[in-house]
Amino acid sequence: MADLLWEEVILARERIAPFAHRTPFLTCASLDRATANNVFFKGEFLQKSGSFKFRGACNTIAALTATERTRGVITHSSGNHAQALALAARLHHVRATVVIPEDAPEIKRLATAGYGAKVVLCKPNLAARAKVTAQIVKETSAIFVSSHDDNQVIAGQGTAAAELIEDVGDLDYVLVPVGGGGLLAGTAITASHLLPKARVIGCEPAEADDAYRSFRSGKRVEEVSTNTIADGLRTTLGVRNFEVIKSRVFDIVRVSEEEIIGAMRYVWERMKIVIEPSSAVAVAPLLYHHLGIEGRRIGVILTGGNVELEPFFQAVFSNNRRKRGR
Amino acid sequence: MADLLWEEVILARERIAPFAHRTPFLTCASLDRATANNVFFKGEFLQKSGSFKFRGACNTIAALTATERTRGVITHSSGNHAQALALAARLHHVRATVVIPEDAPEIKRLATAGYGAKVVLCKPNLAARAKVTAQIVKETSAIFVSSHDDNQVIAGQGTAAAELIEDVGDLDYVLVPVGGGGLLAGTAITASHLLPKARVIGCEPAEADDAYRSFRSGKRVEEVSTNTIADGLRTTLGVRNFEVIKSRVFDIVRVSEEEIIGAMRYVWERMKIVIEPSSAVAVAPLLYHHLGIEGRRIGVILTGGNVELEPFFQAVFSNNRRKRGR
Repeated sequence: MADLLWEEVILARERIAPFAHRTPFLTCASLDRATANNVFFKGEFLQKSGSFKFRGACNTIAALTATERTRGVITHSSGNHAQALALAARLHHVRATVVIPEDAPEIKRLATAGYGAKVVLCKPNLAARAKVTAQIVKETSAIFVSSHDDNQVIAGQGTAAAELIEDVGDLDYVLVPVGGGGLLAGTAITASHLLPKARVIGCEPAEADDAYRSFRSGKRVEEVSTNTIADGLRTTLGVRNFEVIKSRVFDIVRVSEEEIIGAMRYVWERMKIVIEPSSAVAVAPLLYHHLGIEGRRIGVILTGGNVELEPFFQAVFSNNRRKRGR
Repeated sequence: MADLLWEEVILARERIAPFAHRTPFLTCASLDRATANNVFFKGEFLQKSGSFKFRGACNTIAALTATERTRGVITHSSGNHAQALALAARLHHVRATVVIPEDAPEIKRLATAGYGAKVVLCKPNLAARAKVTAQIVKETSAIFVSSHDDNQVIAGQGTAAAELIEDVGDLDYVLVPVGGGGLLAGTAITASHLLPKARVIGCEPAEADDAYRSFRSGKRVEEVSTNTIADGLRTTLGVRNFEVIKSRVFDIVRVSEEEIIGAMRYVWERMKIVIEPSSAVAVAPLLYHHLGIEGRRIGVILTGGNVELEPFFQAVFSNNRRKRGR
């Protein structure tokens, strides 16, 4: 029987090809030595807008009809999906509105507005986000694009693993972070077709482990704590995402906040690349030997590089006034 | 007339090929827009040991005779040359001794020792470094490898520009940082042969501008301040280096400490890569429009990525105890 979800990934690849970067893969000899595995990193921190989220947003907008496009798109997000949707919309000449909580970092608002989206601020809670968004949808008939609970978004995210597998060949494991589950579901769909023997593992902060508990119990847990530095993963697992994950994911593992920071620093230090804490969540289980595997070929998606660097630079260079590039 | 310096670069390429990474080049759309140029970055922050210094050290050791190799090599350095020589020596099964000032960051000592070199501490001044080194040379007959004032080292450093030009084609300008002048001299030799019309520009912190003053006056200035965050460039221009630079370099430009920090942050933020302050010195003249050029193809060597991240992480994550990767 045809797998329609996989068909959507194939279509997504065609749709996003003119817009998205085909990001490179990277390796790290010292991590390979430390873990006794061969790890292949997919460099989505180099993706347009700074994260893999561009894939899902771009696919969703590219799939809209001409009539739908005239209505514009809308989402609520304080993170990478906001910037991704704003940029994808601009590249398709579609109007975008993004509802952002008023306590989100100014840099996120500026980046989203910088990509041409209309930014609407709301009170910093999920209910307010949903309410303000619904009101604008009613007034403008803009099309809502979920950050994760959407088949087109899931299909778009599934393209990252497809490229990685094309580039590096067979893999025994594929590790990705899980928040709302868009990337995990998309990766699982792709892997189930291209590498049916590979084990796809979702990686989650222990402080926000709703996906882990949902996976273990078989029942979707809706509450989620936001007490993690992995700001991209403070999202409840989506309904569509959970259905895919239940049947196609091998396991979900949890990592501590210390491990997230340690893995992030390891990657900055050894690989000389800037990844955000949410990306480090999928590196930590390897670095801290949570999986008990050796001699394996492992794919890891480094999901994004949008770190607010101001506090880092402020702390270290407070004696030097900073002159910003124009 | 044959140019023996260029012949040495050609030989260096062959010698280091089995050991060094052929690093990729990178581009940055936002910097291209901001400067109205096309900039091609050579990714030496991804080179073995974390900087281009590996090229010169590797070439020098590879050129030693079997008899010379039995004597071992020695240098004094508190920076990237220490690690580069240690690793290059290990890969050639040659003993290495590195004299390091006792106030150098512990991480540098550990990294150098980690590559298998014998680390000897000395008082933190140039006279002590030279004296301790001379004593060991006398006792062991180890071969001294300068970090910059050496034709083999210069030739090795010249291979980076050769690869960049092979990869990206014609360039109007090539920008590199200048400290002791190994990279600048090597780049100038390479460019004078492969791109005779290109202008090679040395970039220097205004706070340690001995190369600038030497270039302007035509007389090598020996004093240098160490009052710059670009720790790789706190070195006096070498004798051999100055001879090459006088005749083959188009200009030397200076940047402020603020501009170095701003350029470093720009690269971390936009390119998602970790470069050290010395690398940012060659980005700053572009970002801050010091050159007054537009519509040009510009090569920039991103020389290294060895930043001490402890203060950055300490400041931002002081609430989380850090668990380091094994």
